[in-house]
Amino acid sequence: MTTLMKIARQGTVTEEMREIARQEQLPPEKIRDRIARGRIIIVRNQRRAERIKLKAVGEGLTTKVNVNIGTSTTVVNVKMEIEKAKVALKYGTDTIMDLSTGGDLDTIRCTLLKICDVPFGTVPIYQAFIDTAKKKRAGVYMSVDDIFNTIEKHLKDGVDFMTIHAGITLELVKRMRKHRRIAGIVSRGGAILAAWMLYNEEENPLYKDFDYLLELFAEYDATISLGDALRPGSIHDSHDYYHIAELLNVARLVRRAWEKGVQIMVEGPGHVPLNEIAWDVQLEKRLCNGAPYYVLGPLPTDIAMGYDHIASAIGAAIAAMHGADLICYVTPSEHLSLPTPEQVKEGLIAAKIAAHVADIVKLGWRASRADYEVSIARARLRWGDVFKYALDRDRVIKIYTQHGARSGACDMCGELCVYKILEKYLTP
Amino acid sequence: MTTLMKIARQGTVTEEMREIARQEQLPPEKIRDRIARGRIIIVRNQRRAERIKLKAVGEGLTTKVNVNIGTSTTVVNVKMEIEKAKVALKYGTDTIMDLSTGGDLDTIRCTLLKICDVPFGTVPIYQAFIDTAKKKRAGVYMSVDDIFNTIEKHLKDGVDFMTIHAGITLELVKRMRKHRRIAGIVSRGGAILAAWMLYNEEENPLYKDFDYLLELFAEYDATISLGDALRPGSIHDSHDYYHIAELLNVARLVRRAWEKGVQIMVEGPGHVPLNEIAWDVQLEKRLCNGAPYYVLGPLPTDIAMGYDHIASAIGAAIAAMHGADLICYVTPSEHLSLPTPEQVKEGLIAAKIAAHVADIVKLGWRASRADYEVSIARARLRWGDVFKYALDRDRVIKIYTQHGARSGACDMCGELCVYKILEKYLTP
Repeated sequence: MTTLMKIARQGTVTEEMREIARQEQLPPEKIRDRIARGRIIIVRNQRRAERIKLKAVGEGLTTKVNVNIGTSTTVVNVKMEIEKAKVALKYGTDTIMDLSTGGDLDTIRCTLLKICDVPFGTVPIYQAFIDTAKKKRAGVYMSVDDIFNTIEKHLKDGVDFMTIHAGITLELVKRMRKHRRIAGIVSRGGAILAAWMLYNEEENPLYKDFDYLLELFAEYDATISLGDALRPGSIHDSHDYYHIAELLNVARLVRRAWEKGVQIMVEGPGHVPLNEIAWDVQLEKRLCNGAPYYVLGPLPTDIAMGYDHIASAIGAAIAAMHGADLICYVTPSEHLSLPTPEQVKEGLIAAKIAAHVADIVKLGWRASRADYEVSIARARLRWGDVFKYALDRDRVIKIYTQHGARSGACDMCGELCVYKILEKYLTP
Repeated sequence: MTTLMKIARQGTVTEEMREIARQEQLPPEKIRDRIARGRIIIVRNQRRAERIKLKAVGEGLTTKVNVNIGTSTTVVNVKMEIEKAKVALKYGTDTIMDLSTGGDLDTIRCTLLKICDVPFGTVPIYQAFIDTAKKKRAGVYMSVDDIFNTIEKHLKDGVDFMTIHAGITLELVKRMRKHRRIAGIVSRGGAILAAWMLYNEEENPLYKDFDYLLELFAEYDATISLGDALRPGSIHDSHDYYHIAELLNVARLVRRAWEKGVQIMVEGPGHVPLNEIAWDVQLEKRLCNGAPYYVLGPLPTDIAMGYDHIASAIGAAIAAMHGADLICYVTPSEHLSLPTPEQVKEGLIAAKIAAHVADIVKLGWRASRADYEVSIARARLRWGDVFKYALDRDRVIKIYTQHGARSGACDMCGELCVYKILEKYLTP
């Protein structure tokens, strides 16, 4: 089977690559060359490529943001999840992942897939585990076939990318039984696989049968996102033995995917102190030969519950400035509850601010032109032009008028508006 | 007149220094030595020292946060400002500044001073300008005496620290007439003084008569905060000629304050791209010989209106990690409107998260112990212990229960709770 990566290696520039080149204001040949080397991925399933807005992730591109939605085992409200998808699309997410674990998972996935005209991801191990638990009383009874059949089902449905926790191994999990960490395993996929491996005394099938997995993904030319099952769930676990050992496994798997022409990215932490974030990104890029890096947070503190979107924006901005390519949003409900649509919006906007702040550094004028335009408009008190660049126009206008209808200077400065003073006295 | 700085230089450890040492878990001698060298300041007016919670700012101490409150010329609601002060104190601000520009400024200041049992700051140039405008039709008619009399009035009232824009000079303002920047002067004090200097063709009195100013502050042993009148108001103005030229002036003034035994800190930007924030702090510390640095933001983008508290938290965390000592909060209403009490809370919590994230790096276990405790409690599903560390307990519990009353695993993971899975299968 041919894949986009193989085509790029043959030197061909496809229409998809041209579309990305237009979006990113880069020459199509540059896109092609980086796809060939695995440094850029176009995140789509061959089956859905014509039905979605194409998005690329990787070196030299704008930083992208992802929104997670989906039911949980205790809160199954498909209408609310549809609303979240719509909110995410309205406020400009680049990709959406359905992490549903409650209700009729097949129906929910297909419903959301239809709404989402951006790359759509899943974590199929959830469904394999949950479906097994329904049939056989416990998820750990799932067979290797159960796992791969679920993955294939998602591929057939057109899912563009999937988190695959192939880097966690039996050896690492056994070691963890003896040598604990503060927060253990906080990845749900990681915990499921750890339980499965220990219960069955068997190696992780996603690791052992990675070649088979690659065949499946090559067939649909979809993208693998290598999950970080052992990511730190506390800043005190950051970059410990487990974290780095899994990253080494991941580095080898990236090479194998490239050999088979399968597009792949690497998922990153997690909870990481602020001073470790820059080199965390550099380490991933070094070990994984520049493979795109998809970060969750990082969260530079464990105590920001209720405001984890802010903690996450701090970590994500630094990570992206140093080269992280895709930011997974975190909502104010992280660590506490399934988010509401409003919390999805809050989380997404925080992630978009982090991405833009980083892009100003990574891309220069391509990103910072917006800041220039806003500053010029602000200094001339042209509020309409300022609002044009707002990430959330309704909110901005609501705040601007919160003490009564306005025009001219804002209610912060009023008569003491610096721009009015300057206009009067600084104009020669 | 003797001052705390002079006493420290004589080798004496005062009760105030001991109190700070207890708060900061450092030896009193270390506090004394750093006060002697200007690297730590205890922010209080001699007249109010016994009526407030003492707070120190500087090298090796926890990062502090400041909340600005106060009326504007268009929104004068003293009851709301009192509420903001109470909200700020409830959520743990370290200092409060009254930036009122509307209504009866003397009464408002004294009212707020009574409520605030933390160090209290003002920007007296606002009042000098506004009072003059009321009496003489335009603020630029204010006399040098008007300025210094206002400062002395604030000192007498017990104001602990004041922003003094002494670094902006006639030469710089004249130059700006010819060589513009994107956002001009965005400091209100800076714009007032620029207008005054140009209109009267006279040097900045705060610069010219800095020795007299030092005498006043020494008499009350209050703290000067050297305002950055020419701070960048757009990331495109960051670290330009004006920004650095003012910083050089400020560096000289710091030395002169130290010679007179007056405690002083330096205010910083403003709008600064993310990659310039680390060295911005290093430059201040280098040029100003380690004087405490009080940063507004920095905001690493100009387009985050409505969410500037998040952009600011990103910049402040980096700044504080690299040595900034006091963070001025920014609210979601920045650039748009006078904040509401709710927005004061949002801004303060964002700043506190930034401070904590930085303190984890700066102070190690002294700060990160909270993260350890939260992570341990979280992994054991001891929610009560988790909530104890919340910056906003009510909000956290509200989110935790937003889909119905809860106990045990949260609604994000439900049955698929990693800690429940791990307990079952990972326990040897």
